[in-house]
Amino acid sequence: MEYGGSFRLKVRHIIFDYNTFPARLFDLVLIGAIVLSVLVVMLDSVQSLHADYGRLFYILEWFFTVLFSIEYVMRLYAAESRVRYARSIFGIIDLLAILPTYFSLFFPGTQYLLVIRFFRVLRIFRLMKLMRFVQEGEYVKEALIASSRKIIFFLFFVLVTVSIIGALMYLIEGEAHGFGSIPEGVYWAIVTITTVGYGDIYPQTVVGRMLAAMLMIAGYSIIAVPTGIVSAEMASMHTKIDKGVKGDEKCCSSVEHDRDARFCKECGRPLEGRNGVQEKGPITP
Amino acid sequence: MEYGGSFRLKVRHIIFDYNTFPARLFDLVLIGAIVLSVLVVMLDSVQSLHADYGRLFYILEWFFTVLFSIEYVMRLYAAESRVRYARSIFGIIDLLAILPTYFSLFFPGTQYLLVIRFFRVLRIFRLMKLMRFVQEGEYVKEALIASSRKIIFFLFFVLVTVSIIGALMYLIEGEAHGFGSIPEGVYWAIVTITTVGYGDIYPQTVVGRMLAAMLMIAGYSIIAVPTGIVSAEMASMHTKIDKGVKGDEKCCSSVEHDRDARFCKECGRPLEGRNGVQEKGPITP
Amino acid sequence: MEYGGSFRLKVRHIIFDYNTFPARLFDLVLIGAIVLSVLVVMLDSVQSLHADYGRLFYILEWFFTVLFSIEYVMRLYAAESRVRYARSIFGIIDLLAILPTYFSLFFPGTQYLLVIRFFRVLRIFRLMKLMRFVQEGEYVKEALIASSRKIIFFLFFVLVTVSIIGALMYLIEGEAHGFGSIPEGVYWAIVTITTVGYGDIYPQTVVGRMLAAMLMIAGYSIIAVPTGIVSAEMASMHTKIDKGVKGDEKCCSSVEHDRDARFCKECGRPLEGRNGVQEKGPITP
Amino acid sequence: MEYGGSFRLKVRHIIFDYNTFPARLFDLVLIGAIVLSVLVVMLDSVQSLHADYGRLFYILEWFFTVLFSIEYVMRLYAAESRVRYARSIFGIIDLLAILPTYFSLFFPGTQYLLVIRFFRVLRIFRLMKLMRFVQEGEYVKEALIASSRKIIFFLFFVLVTVSIIGALMYLIEGEAHGFGSIPEGVYWAIVTITTVGYGDIYPQTVVGRMLAAMLMIAGYSIIAVPTGIVSAEMASMHTKIDKGVKGDEKCCSSVEHDRDARFCKECGRPLEGRNGVQEKGPITP
Repeated sequence: MEYGGSFRLKVRHIIFDYNTFPARLFDLVLIGAIVLSVLVVMLDSVQSLHADYGRLFYILEWFFTVLFSIEYVMRLYAAESRVRYARSIFGIIDLLAILPTYFSLFFPGTQYLLVIRFFRVLRIFRLMKLMRFVQEGEYVKEALIASSRKIIFFLFFVLVTVSIIGALMYLIEGEAHGFGSIPEGVYWAIVTITTVGYGDIYPQTVVGRMLAAMLMIAGYSIIAVPTGIVSAEMASMHTKIDKGVKGDEKCCSSVEHDRDARFCKECGRPLEGRNGVQEKGPITP
Repeated sequence: MEYGGSFRLKVRHIIFDYNTFPARLFDLVLIGAIVLSVLVVMLDSVQSLHADYGRLFYILEWFFTVLFSIEYVMRLYAAESRVRYARSIFGIIDLLAILPTYFSLFFPGTQYLLVIRFFRVLRIFRLMKLMRFVQEGEYVKEALIASSRKIIFFLFFVLVTVSIIGALMYLIEGEAHGFGSIPEGVYWAIVTITTVGYGDIYPQTVVGRMLAAMLMIAGYSIIAVPTGIVSAEMASMHTKIDKGVKGDEKCCSSVEHDRDARFCKECGRPLEGRNGVQEKGPITP
Repeated sequence: MEYGGSFRLKVRHIIFDYNTFPARLFDLVLIGAIVLSVLVVMLDSVQSLHADYGRLFYILEWFFTVLFSIEYVMRLYAAESRVRYARSIFGIIDLLAILPTYFSLFFPGTQYLLVIRFFRVLRIFRLMKLMRFVQEGEYVKEALIASSRKIIFFLFFVLVTVSIIGALMYLIEGEAHGFGSIPEGVYWAIVTITTVGYGDIYPQTVVGRMLAAMLMIAGYSIIAVPTGIVSAEMASMHTKIDKGVKGDEKCCSSVEHDRDARFCKECGRPLEGRNGVQEKGPITP
Repeated sequence: MEYGGSFRLKVRHIIFDYNTFPARLFDLVLIGAIVLSVLVVMLDSVQSLHADYGRLFYILEWFFTVLFSIEYVMRLYAAESRVRYARSIFGIIDLLAILPTYFSLFFPGTQYLLVIRFFRVLRIFRLMKLMRFVQEGEYVKEALIASSRKIIFFLFFVLVTVSIIGALMYLIEGEAHGFGSIPEGVYWAIVTITTVGYGDIYPQTVVGRMLAAMLMIAGYSIIAVPTGIVSAEMASMHTKIDKGVKGDEKCCSSVEHDRDARFCKECGRPLEGRNGVQEKGPITP
């Protein structure tokens, strides 16, 4: 069917692309609807508001559920590969975000699962693309990827530390002081090393406090490690960007000439008008 | 009216400029008065002090109000464009800072609004100009502006994270453990991811604590992101300042002369008008 | 005995090396067993789980103890120098990790010492070698070593600060407000300067709060020092890596060839043996 | 008196210098005594220890007081300018550190002032010189001095922010929720913006929590500013150190040649053996 195919193609462009005006408008409206639907779930969870506006929230919930159902069907209809969309993370979230409302008709209480709808907020990163935040996202992402292995290593180190300290604190403080088990000790150690410090569990013996003080100072100092890793990575990326900007002459492919280069470091071509060196031949060995 | 005009001009110079001695003196006295008036409001809010010195504070409050009223009228009189000043943020703050005291004559209780006077403290940044803190302010400001988009992106990411985790914690912990609604869960997540950790709300179930531990470690690690962004930005600005980006003399193409250079380090040409060295030939070995 | 010697050599390769497949498999299985044994100790410390699964945990504990005993004997048997292994930190931990279970047969309660087994988790850093995390570990380690003296100096500064402030707070707040002794004051100062802030001890007088506020802002600001130290160190290491410090060919004096350079960017000489380019002349324009 | 003069000189060398062996030994012993005397004051403040060892602590206190009295007299005797020493900060601390014990003979309770003795611990930074920590200290000090103006600007910004937010929170939350006065609100704002978060005062209204959340995220983000400032400063110092190391040729005074320089940027002398340029005269304009 010629017409159907072209209609499906049109829908696909609107739903899955973000270059044309209708596609952008669709994304904008969708994200607005997601944020509003999430706000409704949020406010409905406040008891005083639920008592006064529960009926309104109920209607809005159904409105958004129907809306997102239509959207889901449209996506399924228009997707290049329906199976791939249905199995993709976003596809599953899209489905899970609408099911709870229907379930709540038969099983009271399942509307709690509406919290899954919050994951749809992740689509907001798509909005960022519209707002031309792509570069910033890429920048942060690249720096994180480049330093991910170092950060994983660091997290491993933190995990080993909190396991050992947590177990020791369980021995030292014991149940009487709130350290009811080793996992609780480990939880306390994480709360402490990250400098969160709720104060629901805290050491009370002298030895426990000394160990805690050491852990705190350690936590305070080693925060420098991930920060240093990411800073160094970003500074390095910066330098490359700064250098790249001025490489206007192109000799061979995509090489960016360093600021102080007199010859192309890739092909040896003397860079004219650079450093006062003009047409001088390269010094051959 | 020739005389009036020149008087207005004189007042304008004193009030709005900060180059001449009287203008600086005016700024200094004004900021002193603002800080003192704010201190009076502050101390008056302490009940024990209010009981003992309430009368003195009342008199001082009126003194500063009359003083700031005169200042406001003078500003209106002397401003180049009265409408623009009256509508500017500082103009509105200046007006709002004096109104509550007058209102309190008719409506008891409105003196609470004196807190608006605290916003006048923002004028202290004008004092910084006097103290030649301009460069520092510019430096910090530039670095923040240059990295603002990246930081907005980062904050978006934090917001999405705390929304999802906050909603999950509401499901997991529930009202019995202090998570009375999703907004409260989100508030807890913000308190946790920023490592503030009041301890007014905290998880008590095993699953809740595991999720909290993950959030803490995430918060502890991702603090590296904004820090890295600003560090890299500042390091980049530093490099530019060190290299003296504004080196205007060009001798051999694209070389940037170092700030302390008296001769071009690439071709040996003496840099005229630099460090008192003019047309002196280079010292040959 | 020829055979015994070669068997011992084989065992040694499997236990102490990590290059061959069996050696890697051994390490992997061992670390898996350590993590499981630690989990058993952890879960057994939770009272509700101990009540239900205490018997299972008891059996597993003995299983791992016997397993680790065999491992210890094998290590002793195969070690190049038995005395050196037995006296090494890992050797002592390996022994201490199995003793408590045997002791608990005679002295009830000593199984608490099983917490020592947690230190075996440190062997996980050996697993990191398997996962090729060596470089990341080296990187972090080098940066920390390079900045260790500066960080020790910084910690000294923090210690002196918390001692003085802790003593002052004891004087100001006194026992009535939770500052029962100077060591408690110092403990509070550490909790505050590291921004942990449990809230078990906190100032309540006006002067105490002012001093606390100053300490907080100090702690908030001086976190910049270790972070700055490590960041600068890492950035410096980065720069060296980027520039390829090990560029051994020297053509024109002190130029360091960039890692991706095929020709010297200063004199145009082709870099032999670099990027597969050998003796090819530079491409002249 | 020739002999007396030379004896005084000898004493001065031992007490005030730190190059010779006896001078170093004196410093080491003195700092050991200071740390011990401070520990005695610390432990004596713990009630349970005071009950058991109070007598021992009393004797030790007198021992250290007499020791430090002798030291003070020696310093006064040997100082180049007695008045200058007596009026210097260390001179005043040295005196104040011994007076309380004598006073306690006549006025019971004044031994509390022994806390002043803690300030003597600052002499530990002298020990650092012995341990060759001078460079590290200088490094950290220089970086802090170089960035001090920026950090003061930043602290000003923080102060203005906490004043305004603290006053607003007093209005919003009021006395019922622990915000008894504006200064308390400001104290809370400092506890929050520095991410300490004791939890002794915390917002309970919806608007208060929203403002608090904004303040937390602000505090979490702006920590990046001082960190970035110090990091950039240290990275810049690093670069200079890295560069300086290789500048072996000395032409005019203390100039360090940049790595890529072919001519001295101070005197225009061509740098022999540098960049393949030998004895070529500088290009004159």
